[in-house]
Amino acid sequence: MDSRPIGVFDSGIGGLTVLKALRERLPDETFLYLGDTARVPYGTKGVATIRRFALQAARYLESRGVKRLVVACNTASSHAIDLLRRECSVPVEGVVEPGVQAALEATRGHVGVIGTPATIASDRYGELLRQVRDDLRIENQHCPLFVPLAEEGWTDDAIALSVAERYLAGLRRLGVDTLILGCTHYPLLKGVISQVMGDEVVLVDSALVLAEAVARDLDEDDAHSPGPGQVKLIVSDMPQRFGEISRRFLDMDVGEVEVVDLELQAGSTPAGKENP
Amino acid sequence: MDSRPIGVFDSGIGGLTVLKALRERLPDETFLYLGDTARVPYGTKGVATIRRFALQAARYLESRGVKRLVVACNTASSHAIDLLRRECSVPVEGVVEPGVQAALEATRGHVGVIGTPATIASDRYGELLRQVRDDLRIENQHCPLFVPLAEEGWTDDAIALSVAERYLAGLRRLGVDTLILGCTHYPLLKGVISQVMGDEVVLVDSALVLAEAVARDLDEDDAHSPGPGQVKLIVSDMPQRFGEISRRFLDMDVGEVEVVDLELQAGSTPAGKENP
Repeated sequence: MDSRPIGVFDSGIGGLTVLKALRERLPDETFLYLGDTARVPYGTKGVATIRRFALQAARYLESRGVKRLVVACNTASSHAIDLLRRECSVPVEGVVEPGVQAALEATRGHVGVIGTPATIASDRYGELLRQVRDDLRIENQHCPLFVPLAEEGWTDDAIALSVAERYLAGLRRLGVDTLILGCTHYPLLKGVISQVMGDEVVLVDSALVLAEAVARDLDEDDAHSPGPGQVKLIVSDMPQRFGEISRRFLDMDVGEVEVVDLELQAGSTPAGKENP
Repeated sequence: MDSRPIGVFDSGIGGLTVLKALRERLPDETFLYLGDTARVPYGTKGVATIRRFALQAARYLESRGVKRLVVACNTASSHAIDLLRRECSVPVEGVVEPGVQAALEATRGHVGVIGTPATIASDRYGELLRQVRDDLRIENQHCPLFVPLAEEGWTDDAIALSVAERYLAGLRRLGVDTLILGCTHYPLLKGVISQVMGDEVVLVDSALVLAEAVARDLDEDDAHSPGPGQVKLIVSDMPQRFGEISRRFLDMDVGEVEVVDLELQAGSTPAGKENP
Protein backbone atom coordinates (compact mmCIF):
# COMPACT_ATOMS: atom_id res chain seq x y z
CA MET A 1 0.00 0.00 0.00
CA ASP A 2 1.09 3.57 -0.63
CA SER A 3 -0.97 6.40 0.81
CA ARG A 4 0.90 9.19 -0.98
CA PRO A 5 -1.22 11.28 -3.36
CA ILE A 6 -1.35 11.09 -7.16
CA GLY A 7 -0.40 14.41 -8.79
CA VAL A 8 -2.56 15.52 -11.73
CA PHE A 9 -1.73 18.62 -13.71
CA ASP A 10 -3.30 20.68 -16.47
CA SER A 11 -3.03 24.24 -17.79
CA GLY A 12 -6.46 25.05 -16.33
CA ILE A 13 -9.88 23.47 -15.88
CA GLY A 14 -9.78 21.01 -18.81
CA GLY A 15 -8.00 18.35 -16.77
CA LEU A 16 -10.99 18.14 -14.43
CA THR A 17 -12.52 15.76 -17.00
CA VAL A 18 -9.52 13.49 -16.35
CA LEU A 19 -9.66 13.95 -12.58
CA LYS A 20 -13.32 12.92 -12.64
CA ALA A 21 -12.53 9.68 -14.47
CA LEU A 22 -9.62 8.98 -12.09
CA ARG A 23 -11.82 9.56 -9.02
CA GLU A 24 -14.48 7.20 -10.34
CA ARG A 25 -12.00 4.45 -11.14
CA LEU A 26 -9.81 4.96 -8.01
CA PRO A 27 -12.10 6.25 -5.26
CA ASP A 28 -9.64 5.47 -2.44
CA GLU A 29 -6.81 7.57 -3.85
CA THR A 30 -5.90 11.10 -2.83
CA PHE A 31 -5.42 13.43 -5.79
CA LEU A 32 -3.45 16.67 -5.83
CA TYR A 33 -4.74 18.58 -8.87
CA LEU A 34 -2.64 21.49 -10.09
CA GLY A 35 -4.17 23.93 -12.64
CA ASP A 36 -1.76 26.54 -14.05
CA THR A 37 -4.52 29.14 -14.35
CA ALA A 38 -2.08 32.07 -14.30
CA ARG A 39 -0.64 31.00 -17.65
CA VAL A 40 -3.53 29.18 -19.31
CA PRO A 41 -3.84 28.41 -22.22
CA TYR A 42 -0.79 26.36 -23.23
CA GLY A 43 -2.11 25.22 -26.61
CA THR A 44 -1.41 28.45 -28.48
CA LYS A 45 2.14 28.77 -27.14
CA GLY A 46 5.61 27.70 -28.24
CA VAL A 47 7.34 24.40 -27.54
CA ALA A 48 10.10 25.74 -25.24
CA THR A 49 7.52 27.64 -23.18
CA ILE A 50 5.20 24.64 -22.87
CA ARG A 51 8.13 22.47 -21.73
CA ARG A 52 9.30 25.04 -19.20
CA PHE A 53 5.81 25.42 -17.71
CA ALA A 54 5.24 21.63 -17.62
CA LEU A 55 8.57 21.04 -15.89
CA GLN A 56 7.80 23.68 -13.27
CA ALA A 57 4.42 22.04 -12.59
CA ALA A 58 5.95 18.56 -12.37
CA ARG A 59 8.70 19.66 -9.99
CA TYR A 60 6.18 21.38 -7.78
CA LEU A 61 3.99 18.27 -7.52
CA GLU A 62 7.09 16.16 -6.82
CA SER A 63 7.98 18.56 -4.00
CA ARG A 64 4.53 17.77 -2.56
CA GLY A 65 5.41 14.08 -2.34
CA VAL A 66 3.25 12.50 -5.07
CA LYS A 67 3.72 8.82 -5.98
CA ARG A 68 2.58 9.21 -9.60
CA LEU A 69 2.29 12.14 -12.00
CA VAL A 70 -0.61 12.36 -14.48
CA VAL A 71 -0.26 14.98 -17.21
CA ALA A 72 -3.94 15.73 -17.85
CA CYS A 73 -3.18 18.14 -20.70
CA ASN A 74 -2.72 17.07 -24.30
CA THR A 75 -0.48 20.00 -25.17
CA ALA A 76 1.96 19.24 -22.33
CA SER A 77 1.70 15.48 -22.99
CA SER A 78 2.50 15.97 -26.68
CA HIS A 79 5.55 18.12 -26.15
CA ALA A 80 6.91 17.38 -22.69
CA ILE A 81 6.20 13.77 -21.71
CA ASP A 82 9.67 12.48 -22.63
CA LEU A 83 11.30 15.37 -20.79
CA LEU A 84 9.15 14.78 -17.68
CA ARG A 85 9.89 11.04 -17.69
CA ARG A 86 13.59 11.85 -17.83
CA GLU A 87 13.48 14.53 -15.14
CA CYS A 88 10.98 13.11 -12.62
CA SER A 89 11.70 10.46 -10.03
CA VAL A 90 8.12 9.06 -10.12
CA PRO A 91 6.26 7.35 -12.99
CA VAL A 92 4.61 9.80 -15.41
CA GLU A 93 1.44 9.07 -17.40
CA GLY A 94 0.06 11.35 -20.11
CA VAL A 95 -3.22 11.55 -22.01
CA VAL A 96 -1.87 10.97 -25.52
CA GLU A 97 -0.88 7.30 -25.31
CA PRO A 98 -4.23 6.17 -23.83
CA GLY A 99 -6.02 8.16 -26.56
CA VAL A 100 -3.96 6.44 -29.23
CA GLN A 101 -4.74 3.02 -27.74
CA ALA A 102 -8.48 3.73 -27.65
CA ALA A 103 -8.44 5.03 -31.24
CA LEU A 104 -6.62 1.91 -32.47
CA GLU A 105 -9.30 -0.26 -30.89
CA ALA A 106 -12.15 1.75 -32.41
CA THR A 107 -11.04 2.65 -35.94
CA ARG A 108 -11.84 0.94 -39.22
CA GLY A 109 -8.87 2.73 -40.83
CA HIS A 110 -9.50 6.48 -40.92
CA VAL A 111 -8.73 8.58 -37.82
CA GLY A 112 -9.22 12.31 -37.21
CA VAL A 113 -7.29 14.16 -34.51
CA ILE A 114 -8.46 17.49 -33.14
CA GLY A 115 -6.51 19.54 -30.60
CA THR A 116 -4.85 22.85 -29.83
CA PRO A 117 -2.48 24.38 -32.42
CA ALA A 118 0.51 23.17 -30.37
CA THR A 119 -0.77 19.60 -30.06
CA ILE A 120 -1.57 19.39 -33.77
CA ALA A 121 1.79 20.92 -34.71
CA SER A 122 3.57 18.24 -32.68
CA ASP A 123 1.87 15.45 -34.73
CA ARG A 124 2.42 13.28 -31.65
CA TYR A 125 -0.85 11.36 -32.15
CA GLY A 126 -0.06 10.65 -35.80
CA GLU A 127 3.44 9.48 -34.94
CA LEU A 128 2.24 7.02 -32.28
CA LEU A 129 -0.68 5.78 -34.42
CA ARG A 130 1.59 5.11 -37.40
CA GLN A 131 4.09 3.23 -35.20
CA VAL A 132 1.41 0.58 -34.65
CA ARG A 133 -0.48 0.73 -37.97
CA ASP A 134 1.22 2.47 -40.85
CA ASP A 135 -1.79 1.83 -43.14
CA LEU A 136 -4.02 4.26 -41.21
CA ARG A 137 -5.31 7.41 -42.86
CA ILE A 138 -4.90 10.28 -40.39
CA GLU A 139 -6.35 13.80 -40.56
CA ASN A 140 -5.34 16.64 -38.24
CA GLN A 141 -7.32 19.75 -37.36
CA HIS A 142 -6.60 22.41 -34.77
CA CYS A 143 -9.55 24.12 -33.08
CA PRO A 144 -8.22 27.11 -31.08
CA LEU A 145 -11.66 28.53 -30.22
CA PHE A 146 -12.90 25.35 -28.52
CA VAL A 147 -10.95 26.08 -25.30
CA PRO A 148 -12.27 29.64 -24.79
CA LEU A 149 -15.80 28.44 -25.71
CA ALA A 150 -15.59 25.75 -23.03
CA GLU A 151 -14.10 28.19 -20.51
CA GLU A 152 -16.96 30.64 -21.27
CA GLY A 153 -19.50 27.82 -20.80
CA TRP A 154 -20.91 28.18 -24.33
CA THR A 155 -20.79 24.47 -25.05
CA ASP A 156 -24.19 23.59 -26.42
CA ASP A 157 -25.71 26.44 -28.41
CA ALA A 158 -25.86 27.93 -31.91
CA ILE A 159 -22.44 29.63 -31.65
CA ALA A 160 -20.72 26.45 -30.43
CA LEU A 161 -22.39 24.56 -33.28
CA SER A 162 -21.24 27.12 -35.91
CA VAL A 163 -17.67 26.99 -34.63
CA ALA A 164 -17.72 23.17 -34.59
CA GLU A 165 -19.17 23.15 -38.12
CA ARG A 166 -16.37 25.43 -39.37
CA TYR A 167 -13.58 23.37 -37.82
CA LEU A 168 -14.99 19.89 -38.45
CA ALA A 169 -16.85 19.98 -41.79
CA GLY A 170 -13.65 19.03 -43.62
CA LEU A 171 -13.07 15.97 -41.43
CA ARG A 172 -16.68 14.85 -41.90
CA ARG A 173 -16.40 15.17 -45.70
CA LEU A 174 -13.16 13.16 -45.68
CA GLY A 175 -15.08 10.38 -43.92
CA VAL A 176 -13.07 9.74 -40.75
CA ASP A 177 -14.65 6.94 -38.69
CA THR A 178 -12.95 7.78 -35.37
CA LEU A 179 -12.20 11.20 -33.92
CA ILE A 180 -9.68 11.69 -31.11
CA LEU A 181 -10.69 14.55 -28.80
CA GLY A 182 -7.06 15.60 -28.36
CA CYS A 183 -7.66 18.25 -25.69
CA THR A 184 -9.16 17.67 -22.27
CA HIS A 185 -11.55 20.60 -22.75
CA TYR A 186 -13.19 19.03 -25.80
CA PRO A 187 -15.35 16.43 -24.02
CA LEU A 188 -17.28 19.45 -22.69
CA LEU A 189 -18.25 20.13 -26.34
CA LYS A 190 -19.12 16.50 -27.16
CA GLY A 191 -22.72 17.40 -28.00
CA VAL A 192 -22.00 19.78 -30.86
CA ILE A 193 -18.97 17.79 -32.07
CA SER A 194 -21.14 14.70 -32.37
CA GLN A 195 -23.90 16.69 -34.07
CA VAL A 196 -21.46 17.82 -36.78
CA MET A 197 -19.63 14.51 -37.21
CA GLY A 198 -22.70 12.26 -37.08
CA ASP A 199 -23.57 9.41 -34.71
CA GLU A 200 -21.59 6.77 -36.57
CA VAL A 201 -18.24 8.46 -35.83
CA VAL A 202 -16.61 7.23 -32.59
CA LEU A 203 -15.41 10.08 -30.35
CA VAL A 204 -12.33 9.10 -28.32
CA ASP A 205 -12.06 10.71 -24.89
CA SER A 206 -8.85 9.40 -23.34
CA ALA A 207 -9.84 10.01 -19.71
CA LEU A 208 -11.37 6.56 -19.15
CA VAL A 209 -8.51 4.68 -20.81
CA LEU A 210 -6.01 6.78 -18.86
CA ALA A 211 -7.73 5.98 -15.55
CA GLU A 212 -7.55 2.27 -16.46
CA ALA A 213 -3.82 2.59 -17.21
CA VAL A 214 -3.11 4.31 -13.90
CA ALA A 215 -5.12 1.67 -12.01
CA ARG A 216 -3.17 -1.14 -13.72
CA ASP A 217 0.09 0.57 -12.89
CA LEU A 218 -0.85 0.84 -9.20
CA ASP A 219 -1.87 -2.85 -9.25
CA GLU A 220 1.50 -3.88 -10.61
CA ASP A 221 3.42 -1.95 -7.97
CA ASP A 222 0.95 -2.77 -5.20
CA ALA A 223 0.81 0.99 -4.65
CA HIS A 224 -2.90 1.60 -4.03
CA SER A 225 -3.91 3.86 -1.18
CA PRO A 226 -5.87 2.36 1.73
CA GLY A 227 -8.24 5.37 1.54
CA PRO A 228 -10.25 7.33 2.28
CA GLY A 229 -9.93 9.15 -1.05
CA GLN A 230 -9.61 12.92 -1.18
CA VAL A 231 -9.17 15.71 -3.69
CA LYS A 232 -6.97 18.73 -3.07
CA LEU A 233 -6.96 21.53 -5.65
CA ILE A 234 -4.06 23.90 -6.26
CA VAL A 235 -4.01 26.71 -8.84
CA SER A 236 -1.63 29.49 -9.85
CA ASP A 237 -4.50 32.05 -10.09
CA MET A 238 -8.23 32.61 -9.53
CA PRO A 239 -8.79 30.06 -6.71
CA GLN A 240 -12.36 31.12 -6.01
CA ARG A 241 -13.64 30.80 -9.56
CA PHE A 242 -11.79 27.49 -9.90
CA GLY A 243 -13.34 26.19 -6.69
CA GLU A 244 -16.84 27.00 -7.93
CA ILE A 245 -16.34 25.32 -11.30
CA SER A 246 -14.75 22.27 -9.69
CA ARG A 247 -17.44 21.81 -7.09
CA ARG A 248 -20.09 21.88 -9.82
CA PHE A 249 -18.16 19.70 -12.22
CA LEU A 250 -16.94 17.06 -9.73
CA ASP A 251 -20.15 17.30 -7.70
CA MET A 252 -18.26 17.14 -4.41
CA ASP A 253 -16.98 19.38 -1.65
CA VAL A 254 -13.44 20.29 -2.71
CA GLY A 255 -12.61 22.44 0.33
CA GLU A 256 -10.33 25.44 0.12
CA VAL A 257 -8.38 25.86 -3.16
CA GLU A 258 -4.67 26.56 -2.56
CA VAL A 259 -2.69 29.12 -4.60
CA VAL A 260 0.92 28.61 -5.67
CA ASP A 261 3.27 30.86 -7.65
CA LEU A 262 4.97 28.39 -9.99
CA GLU A 263 7.45 31.00 -11.22
CA LEU A 264 8.57 31.74 -7.69
CA GLN A 265 8.83 28.01 -6.96
CA ALA A 266 10.96 27.58 -10.05
CA GLY A 267 13.15 30.46 -8.94
CA SER A 268 13.92 28.71 -5.68
CA THR A 269 15.02 25.49 -7.39
CA PRO A 270 17.63 26.39 -9.96
CA ALA A 271 17.01 23.22 -11.99
CA GLY A 272 13.51 24.46 -12.74
CA LYS A 273 14.98 27.39 -14.63
CA GLU A 274 16.24 25.26 -17.46
CA ASN A 275 14.70 26.11 -20.77
CA PRO A 276 14.97 22.74 -22.44
CA MET B 1 15.91 66.14 -27.60
CA ASP B 2 15.93 62.61 -26.19
CA SER B 3 16.74 59.70 -28.49
CA ARG B 4 15.89 56.97 -25.98
CA PRO B 5 13.06 54.65 -27.02
CA ILE B 6 9.46 54.65 -25.82
CA GLY B 7 8.46 51.36 -24.20
CA VAL B 8 5.04 49.97 -25.12
CA PHE B 9 3.68 46.85 -23.52
CA ASP B 10 0.69 44.56 -23.90
CA SER B 11 -0.23 40.99 -23.03
CA GLY B 12 -0.01 40.01 -26.70
CA ILE B 13 -0.89 41.37 -30.13
CA GLY B 14 -3.74 43.70 -29.13
CA GLY B 15 -1.38 46.56 -28.31
CA LEU B 16 -0.26 46.68 -31.94
CA THR B 17 -3.35 48.84 -32.58
CA VAL B 18 -1.83 51.32 -30.11
CA LEU B 19 1.67 51.02 -31.55
CA LYS B 20 0.28 51.79 -35.00
CA ALA B 21 -1.37 55.00 -33.76
CA LEU B 22 1.82 56.01 -31.92
CA ARG B 23 3.95 55.40 -35.02
CA GLU B 24 1.65 57.51 -37.16
CA ARG B 25 1.61 60.38 -34.67
CA LEU B 26 5.30 60.16 -33.72
CA PRO B 27 7.18 58.84 -36.77
CA ASP B 28 10.62 59.91 -35.49
CA GLU B 29 10.41 57.94 -32.25
CA THR B 30 11.91 54.53 -31.60
CA PHE B 31 9.45 52.11 -30.00
CA LEU B 32 10.32 49.02 -27.98
CA TYR B 33 7.15 46.91 -28.03
CA LEU B 34 6.92 44.08 -25.50
CA GLY B 35 4.17 41.44 -25.90
CA ASP B 36 3.87 38.94 -23.04
CA THR B 37 2.80 36.15 -25.39
CA ALA B 38 3.89 33.39 -22.98
CA ARG B 39 1.19 34.40 -20.50
CA VAL B 40 -1.49 35.96 -22.72
CA PRO B 41 -4.39 36.59 -22.03
CA TYR B 42 -4.38 38.78 -18.90
CA GLY B 43 -8.08 39.67 -19.02
CA THR B 44 -9.37 36.41 -17.55
CA LYS B 45 -6.85 36.40 -14.68
CA GLY B 46 -6.77 37.65 -11.10
CA VAL B 47 -5.73 41.09 -9.89
CA ALA B 48 -2.52 40.04 -8.06
CA THR B 49 -1.36 38.06 -11.09
CA ILE B 50 -2.08 40.92 -13.52
CA ARG B 51 -0.13 43.32 -11.29
CA ARG B 52 2.82 40.95 -10.96
CA PHE B 53 3.01 40.40 -14.72
CA ALA B 54 2.65 44.15 -15.47
CA LEU B 55 5.39 45.05 -13.00
CA GLN B 56 7.75 42.48 -14.52
CA ALA B 57 7.11 43.91 -17.99
CA ALA B 58 7.63 47.49 -16.81
CA ARG B 59 10.87 46.68 -15.01
CA TYR B 60 12.15 44.88 -18.07
CA LEU B 61 11.45 47.85 -20.35
CA GLU B 62 13.04 50.19 -17.80
CA SER B 63 16.15 48.00 -17.85
CA ARG B 64 16.23 48.60 -21.63
CA GLY B 65 16.49 52.35 -21.05
CA VAL B 66 13.11 53.66 -22.18
CA LYS B 67 12.19 57.31 -21.60
CA ARG B 68 8.42 56.68 -21.37
CA LEU B 69 6.26 53.65 -20.66
CA VAL B 70 2.95 53.13 -22.47
CA VAL B 71 0.68 50.42 -21.08
CA ALA B 72 -1.14 49.40 -24.25
CA CYS B 73 -3.38 46.93 -22.43
CA ASN B 74 -6.66 47.87 -20.79
CA THR B 75 -6.51 45.06 -18.25
CA ALA B 76 -3.06 46.11 -17.00
CA SER B 77 -4.00 49.81 -17.19
CA SER B 78 -7.15 49.21 -15.13
CA HIS B 79 -5.45 47.29 -12.35
CA ALA B 80 -1.79 48.27 -12.33
CA ILE B 81 -1.34 51.87 -13.51
CA ASP B 82 -1.07 53.36 -10.00
CA LEU B 83 1.40 50.66 -9.00
CA LEU B 84 3.51 51.24 -12.12
CA ARG B 85 3.53 55.01 -11.61
CA ARG B 86 4.74 54.44 -8.05
CA GLU B 87 7.39 51.87 -9.00
CA CYS B 88 8.78 53.24 -12.28
CA SER B 89 11.28 56.05 -12.64
CA VAL B 90 9.87 57.20 -16.01
CA PRO B 91 6.42 58.65 -16.82
CA VAL B 92 3.74 56.00 -17.39
CA GLU B 93 0.73 56.44 -19.68
CA GLY B 94 -2.13 53.94 -19.93
CA VAL B 95 -5.05 53.44 -22.33
CA VAL B 96 -7.89 53.95 -19.85
CA GLU B 97 -7.60 57.69 -19.16
CA PRO B 98 -7.45 58.66 -22.86
CA GLY B 99 -10.49 56.44 -23.50
CA VAL B 100 -12.39 58.19 -20.71
CA GLN B 101 -11.48 61.58 -22.11
CA ALA B 102 -12.67 60.64 -25.61
CA ALA B 103 -15.91 59.19 -24.28
CA LEU B 104 -16.64 62.35 -22.28
CA GLU B 105 -16.22 64.42 -25.45
CA ALA B 106 -18.51 62.15 -27.48
CA THR B 107 -21.37 61.18 -25.19
CA ARG B 108 -24.83 62.67 -24.85
CA GLY B 109 -25.19 61.02 -21.43
CA HIS B 110 -25.24 57.23 -21.81
CA VAL B 111 -21.95 55.32 -22.07
CA GLY B 112 -21.32 51.61 -22.55
CA VAL B 113 -18.00 50.01 -21.62
CA ILE B 114 -16.91 46.66 -23.04
CA GLY B 115 -13.73 44.88 -22.00
CA THR B 116 -12.20 41.72 -20.57
CA PRO B 117 -13.70 40.23 -17.39
CA ALA B 118 -10.82 41.73 -15.35
CA THR B 119 -11.21 45.23 -16.82
CA ILE B 120 -14.97 45.21 -16.30
CA ALA B 121 -14.60 43.86 -12.75
CA SER B 122 -12.25 46.75 -11.92
CA ASP B 123 -14.94 49.34 -12.92
CA ARG B 124 -12.02 51.67 -13.58
CA TYR B 125 -13.73 53.33 -16.55
CA GLY B 126 -16.92 53.94 -14.58
CA GLU B 127 -14.98 55.38 -11.66
CA LEU B 128 -13.08 57.87 -13.81
CA LEU B 129 -16.16 58.82 -15.87
CA ARG B 130 -18.22 59.50 -12.73
CA GLN B 131 -15.43 61.63 -11.23
CA VAL B 132 -16.01 64.11 -14.06
CA ARG B 133 -19.74 63.68 -14.67
CA ASP B 134 -21.75 61.95 -11.99
CA ASP B 135 -24.96 62.28 -14.02
CA LEU B 136 -23.77 59.80 -16.67
CA ARG B 137 -25.56 56.49 -17.15
CA ILE B 138 -22.91 53.78 -17.51
CA GLU B 139 -23.36 50.16 -18.64
CA ASN B 140 -20.64 47.50 -18.37
CA GLN B 141 -20.32 44.30 -20.38
CA HIS B 142 -17.45 41.82 -20.49
CA CYS B 143 -16.79 39.99 -23.76
CA PRO B 144 -14.28 37.19 -23.07
CA LEU B 145 -14.56 35.57 -26.52
CA PHE B 146 -13.61 38.74 -28.44
CA VAL B 147 -9.88 38.30 -27.71
CA PRO B 148 -9.62 34.69 -28.96
CA LEU B 149 -11.78 35.61 -32.00
CA ALA B 150 -9.37 38.43 -32.86
CA GLU B 151 -6.34 36.21 -32.24
CA GLU B 152 -7.88 33.55 -34.55
CA GLY B 153 -8.51 36.22 -37.21
CA TRP B 154 -12.28 35.60 -37.27
CA THR B 155 -13.16 39.26 -37.09
CA ASP B 156 -15.68 39.86 -39.83
CA ASP B 157 -17.88 36.82 -40.41
CA ALA B 158 -21.10 35.17 -39.26
CA ILE B 159 -19.57 33.72 -36.09
CA ALA B 160 -18.04 37.06 -35.03
CA LEU B 161 -21.41 38.70 -35.68
CA SER B 162 -23.30 36.10 -33.59
CA VAL B 163 -20.87 36.52 -30.70
CA ALA B 164 -21.11 40.33 -30.92
CA GLU B 165 -24.91 40.08 -31.04
CA ARG B 166 -24.96 37.94 -27.89
CA TYR B 167 -22.67 40.26 -25.91
CA LEU B 168 -23.99 43.60 -27.16
CA ALA B 169 -27.75 43.24 -27.74
CA GLY B 170 -28.42 44.30 -24.14
CA LEU B 171 -26.37 47.50 -24.52
CA ARG B 172 -28.13 48.35 -27.78
CA ARG B 173 -31.55 47.86 -26.17
CA LEU B 174 -30.55 50.10 -23.24
CA GLY B 175 -29.74 52.81 -25.79
CA VAL B 176 -26.12 53.74 -25.05
CA ASP B 177 -24.93 56.53 -27.38
CA THR B 178 -21.17 55.95 -26.92
CA LEU B 179 -19.34 52.64 -26.56
CA ILE B 180 -15.80 52.46 -25.16
CA LEU B 181 -13.80 49.64 -26.78
CA GLY B 182 -12.06 48.87 -23.49
CA CYS B 183 -9.60 46.31 -24.86
CA THR B 184 -6.95 46.94 -27.49
CA HIS B 185 -8.06 43.84 -29.41
CA TYR B 186 -11.57 45.15 -29.97
CA PRO B 187 -10.83 47.68 -32.74
CA LEU B 188 -10.06 44.60 -34.84
CA LEU B 189 -13.77 43.70 -34.44
CA LYS B 190 -15.08 47.21 -35.13
CA GLY B 191 -17.05 46.05 -38.18
CA VAL B 192 -19.32 43.60 -36.39
CA ILE B 193 -19.53 45.72 -33.23
CA SER B 194 -20.77 48.65 -35.30
CA GLN B 195 -23.18 46.39 -37.19
CA VAL B 196 -24.80 45.31 -33.91
CA MET B 197 -24.79 48.71 -32.20
CA GLY B 198 -25.90 50.75 -35.23
CA ASP B 199 -24.15 53.63 -36.99
CA GLU B 200 -25.38 56.31 -34.61
CA VAL B 201 -23.40 54.89 -31.65
CA VAL B 202 -19.87 56.37 -31.33
CA LEU B 203 -17.18 53.71 -30.86
CA VAL B 204 -14.28 54.99 -28.74
CA ASP B 205 -10.86 53.56 -29.60
CA SER B 206 -8.41 55.16 -27.20
CA ALA B 207 -5.30 54.62 -29.37
CA LEU B 208 -5.54 58.00 -31.17
CA VAL B 209 -6.20 59.99 -28.00
CA LEU B 210 -3.39 58.15 -26.25
CA ALA B 211 -0.93 58.97 -29.05
CA GLU B 212 -1.96 62.63 -28.75
CA ALA B 213 -1.34 62.55 -24.99
CA VAL B 214 2.12 61.03 -25.40
CA ALA B 215 3.01 63.60 -28.08
CA ARG B 216 1.91 66.45 -25.79
CA ASP B 217 3.92 65.00 -22.93
CA LEU B 218 7.07 64.81 -25.11
CA ASP B 219 6.42 68.43 -26.21
CA GLU B 220 6.28 69.61 -22.62
CA ASP B 221 9.55 67.93 -21.66
CA ASP B 222 11.23 68.71 -24.98
CA ALA B 223 11.91 64.99 -25.16
CA HIS B 224 11.24 64.16 -28.81
CA SER B 225 13.68 61.95 -30.67
CA PRO B 226 15.62 63.44 -33.59
CA GLY B 227 14.82 60.28 -35.56
CA PRO B 228 14.92 58.23 -37.62
CA GLY B 229 12.04 56.29 -36.05
CA GLN B 230 12.29 52.54 -35.54
CA VAL B 231 10.27 49.67 -34.12
CA LYS B 232 11.81 46.84 -32.14
CA LEU B 233 9.59 43.95 -31.09
CA ILE B 234 10.17 41.74 -28.05
CA VAL B 235 7.95 38.85 -26.96
CA SER B 236 8.02 36.21 -24.26
CA ASP B 237 6.98 33.45 -26.73
CA MET B 238 6.24 32.68 -30.41
CA PRO B 239 8.51 35.29 -32.03
CA GLN B 240 7.98 34.03 -35.56
CA ARG B 241 4.18 34.10 -35.52
CA PHE B 242 4.31 37.50 -33.82
CA GLY B 243 6.66 38.83 -36.47
CA GLU B 244 4.34 37.73 -39.28
CA ILE B 245 1.25 39.27 -37.69
CA SER B 246 3.12 42.51 -36.93
CA ARG B 247 4.58 42.90 -40.40
CA ARG B 248 1.11 42.50 -41.87
CA PHE B 249 -0.59 44.73 -39.34
CA LEU B 250 1.99 47.55 -39.21
CA ASP B 251 2.77 47.18 -42.92
CA MET B 252 6.52 47.60 -42.33
CA ASP B 253 9.67 45.55 -41.99
CA VAL B 254 9.98 44.87 -38.26
CA GLY B 255 13.24 42.92 -38.44
CA GLU B 256 14.03 40.07 -36.07
CA VAL B 257 11.69 39.65 -33.09
CA GLU B 258 13.58 39.22 -29.79
CA VAL B 259 12.55 36.73 -27.12
CA VAL B 260 12.77 37.42 -23.39
CA ASP B 261 11.89 35.25 -20.39
CA LEU B 262 10.13 37.73 -18.09
CA GLU B 263 10.04 35.23 -15.20
CA LEU B 264 13.77 34.73 -15.38
CA GLN B 265 14.31 38.48 -15.58
CA ALA B 266 12.12 38.94 -12.52
CA GLY B 267 14.10 36.26 -10.69
CA SER B 268 17.32 38.18 -11.21
CA THR B 269 15.90 41.40 -9.74
CA PRO B 270 14.54 40.57 -6.29
CA ALA B 271 12.16 43.54 -6.30
CA GLY B 272 10.34 42.01 -9.24
CA LYS B 273 9.27 39.12 -7.05
CA GLU B 274 6.91 41.22 -5.00
CA ASN B 275 3.32 40.21 -5.32
CA PRO B 276 1.65 43.56 -4.71
